[in-house]
Amino acid sequence: MRSGGQETGRHLFWVWSAGIRGPLGMVEKRGVVLVPELLGTTENELGIRKWLEDQGHTLVTTSSKEGEDSVFDKELVDAEIIITTPFHPGYLTAERLAKAKNLKLAVTAGIGSDHVDLNAANKTNGGITVAEVTGSNVVSVAEHVVMTILVLVRNFVPAHEMIEQGRWDVAEAAKNEFDLEGKVVGTVAVGRIGERVLRRLAPFDCKELLYYDYQPLSPEKEKEIGCRRVEDLEEMLAQCDVVTINCPLHEKTRGLFNKDLIAKMKPGSWLVNTARGAIVVKEDVAEALKSGHLRGYGGDVWFPQPAPKEHPLRYAKNPFGGGNAMVPHMSGTSLDAQKRYADGVKSILDSYLSGRFDYRPQDLIVHGGDYATKAYGQRK
Amino acid sequence: MRSGGQETGRHLFWVWSAGIRGPLGMVEKRGVVLVPELLGTTENELGIRKWLEDQGHTLVTTSSKEGEDSVFDKELVDAEIIITTPFHPGYLTAERLAKAKNLKLAVTAGIGSDHVDLNAANKTNGGITVAEVTGSNVVSVAEHVVMTILVLVRNFVPAHEMIEQGRWDVAEAAKNEFDLEGKVVGTVAVGRIGERVLRRLAPFDCKELLYYDYQPLSPEKEKEIGCRRVEDLEEMLAQCDVVTINCPLHEKTRGLFNKDLIAKMKPGSWLVNTARGAIVVKEDVAEALKSGHLRGYGGDVWFPQPAPKEHPLRYAKNPFGGGNAMVPHMSGTSLDAQKRYADGVKSILDSYLSGRFDYRPQDLIVHGGDYATKAYGQRK
Repeated sequence: MRSGGQETGRHLFWVWSAGIRGPLGMVEKRGVVLVPELLGTTENELGIRKWLEDQGHTLVTTSSKEGEDSVFDKELVDAEIIITTPFHPGYLTAERLAKAKNLKLAVTAGIGSDHVDLNAANKTNGGITVAEVTGSNVVSVAEHVVMTILVLVRNFVPAHEMIEQGRWDVAEAAKNEFDLEGKVVGTVAVGRIGERVLRRLAPFDCKELLYYDYQPLSPEKEKEIGCRRVEDLEEMLAQCDVVTINCPLHEKTRGLFNKDLIAKMKPGSWLVNTARGAIVVKEDVAEALKSGHLRGYGGDVWFPQPAPKEHPLRYAKNPFGGGNAMVPHMSGTSLDAQKRYADGVKSILDSYLSGRFDYRPQDLIVHGGDYATKAYGQRK
Repeated sequence: MRSGGQETGRHLFWVWSAGIRGPLGMVEKRGVVLVPELLGTTENELGIRKWLEDQGHTLVTTSSKEGEDSVFDKELVDAEIIITTPFHPGYLTAERLAKAKNLKLAVTAGIGSDHVDLNAANKTNGGITVAEVTGSNVVSVAEHVVMTILVLVRNFVPAHEMIEQGRWDVAEAAKNEFDLEGKVVGTVAVGRIGERVLRRLAPFDCKELLYYDYQPLSPEKEKEIGCRRVEDLEEMLAQCDVVTINCPLHEKTRGLFNKDLIAKMKPGSWLVNTARGAIVVKEDVAEALKSGHLRGYGGDVWFPQPAPKEHPLRYAKNPFGGGNAMVPHMSGTSLDAQKRYADGVKSILDSYLSGRFDYRPQDLIVHGGDYATKAYGQRK
C-alpha cells in the first residue's frame, strides 16, 4: 500500500503527525498497553487507513518532514491531499506549494492553519482548499486556559514541586498564592475559544470579565456571560490581573506581546497564551517574568515548535521561583479532542472524495482562490 | 510584651501558626522583600498585636508546640484564648485541655477545628467556646478543587515536567489527557465548599454533576446548579469519573476511602481530597494509583501534617508516571483568604473581649458545653 504516486488509486494522502508519535504504550504489569484512542499519531493515522484503502486510495504516513530529502518533500510532488496536525505541523511554504502540482486540499487535523502560506495557497493550482476541523478542540483549549489561570493564580507548580522534593513549607507556597475571585480577567479576542473561557470563568466571581475584539458580542451574550468589551487593547491590559490570548496568528498579531505592550500590563499580572507562540516575543516575556512585572506565564504554544531545549520560556521564573505553567502543544489534543478531529477530518475527506464538496462553511480557511474566513489574512 | 502569664493585662493570647513561618522574603534585585499580606504567620500574627496590646492584653506567639517542654505546653496553663491555624495546628488534646485551667476560647484562624478534642472541650472549664472563621476560605478551597480536577484530567503535571526537563513529546503528554466536558463529577458532601465546587463546574458541560449528602439541596438549588443527589455513596462513586471529597473529618468519615470503598469507584477515575487527609487511607490510595484503578489523586490535605518526607502520597504515581497533584496544606490560605480569616479572628476576639459575646452563629463549633453545629460530633 506504500506508494509514492497515484498508480495504486485515485488519490494520494498524507497523514502527517510528527511530534505525536509512538511508542504509545504505558508500562504496566501486563506489559505494554497501546492507547488506541491516541488517534492523531503516525501509528493510528486518525483511524482512516482502512476506510480510504477500501475506496482504492493510497495513504502515506510519515514523520520525515525536515530538509530537502525528507519523505514529505519527495511525496509532495504527487500528493492530492495533505493532512497534518497543527501541533508539530508540516509547513506548507510558498516554495513547497510551488512543487505540489497535484495538490487540491490541505486538511489540518485540528484547528489553526497558520503553517500554510495562505496567500500562496490561493495561487496554487488555481486555488487549493485549506480546511480545518473548526470546533473540534475549542472546549479542550478553553478548559486548558481556565486550568492554567488557576495553576498560576493559586501557585500550584512550586507547591507541587515542594511535595515531590520531600519538603513542607506552607508560607513559601502561600506567599504567592491568590484567589481568582475578585480579580479582573480579560481575553484578547472572544471567538470560539475566548467566549468559552469567559463562560467557564463566570461562576468564579471575578471582579470583571473583559474582552477585546474587533467584533463585539451581542448585548444579550454580554449580559448572559457578565462581560464587558474594551475597545482599546492597552486600556484593557492596564485593568487586567489575568490576560488570556485567544486570537489567531496573523500579520497583525505576530509579536504583538512585545516589551512595549507587556509594559502596559498591570504589574504582577498573569499572562496565558494557548493561541500561538509567535504572538508573544519570547525573550520579552521571559524578561518580564524575571523582573516580576509578569507574575506568571503559561500555556502550550511555542515558537518554534517543537520548542528547542534552550527555549527561554521553558525555564523562565518569577522572583518567587515560580510562575511558569508551560506544557508542550497539547491543549487541543486530549483523547476526547482526538476523537472529534479524527471524525472531522473523515468528514472533510468524504466531502472531497464524494465530489459533493459539501464542506461545513466554518471549516474552510481558503477556498476557490480566496479567504473563506475573517480570522486570517484579510485583516492585514 | 513577651509574657508567660496574665500579669501585664487581662488576657493571654496565643497566635500560633507554626508551619506558616518565615523568613517570608522573596529574593530579588533589591534584596529581601517581605510579604506583609502573609498574615497567618508567626511574624505577622494576623496583624492583631497592636490592636490587642492597645487594649492592655498580652499576645504570645510561638511555633514551639511539640513535646512537654514546648512553649505551648508551658503557656497553656495560663492562656485564656488560644488561636491556631488549621494548617499545622496546635492540637488541643484532652490531656492538654485538662491543664488549661483559664481557657475560655479556642479560635481556629481558618476553617476546620478537628485538632481540638471537642468532647473534652465541652467538659473543660464548664465548656469552652471553639470558634472558627466560617466561610473565610470556602471560595479558596473550591477554586483549588476545580484547579486540581483540571490538572489531573488534563494531565498537567507530567506535561509541565517534560518542559522543565528540556523534552518534547506530545503523544506522551496526550495519552493520558482528557477533557472535563462529558465526564461525571460527584462530591462527597455539598456544604459550603461542595456547593461552590459544583457551581464552578456547571459551565464545563459535564455529563452529570452528582452529590452525596445527608442533607439534600433544595429542588430550586439543584435545578439552578444542574446537579442530582445520589442517596447511596457507593452508588454515586460507581458512576463518577471524578470524585471530590468535601465533608468534615469525624468518626464516620475517618478512613472512609479505604481499599474497599476505592474498589467501588469507577476504574480509571480521579479522586480529589481537600477536606482532611485522614478521610482516606493513604496506603490504599497509593496502591490504587499504582495499579491504575485510580488514574489520579490530588489535593492539599495529609495525615499527619506536615507530611513526613516518606509519606507515600508524595510520590505515588499511576502507570503512566503521572496522576499526582498533591500540594502542602495551602488551598485555604491564599493571601486573599488570609485577609479574610485575619479579619474574622479579630471579630471573634472582639465579641469575646467586649463581653458582648455576639458571635456569628455559623462560627461556633462548640459553645456552652454543647455542639453548636451539625458538622462535627453529634452525627456519630
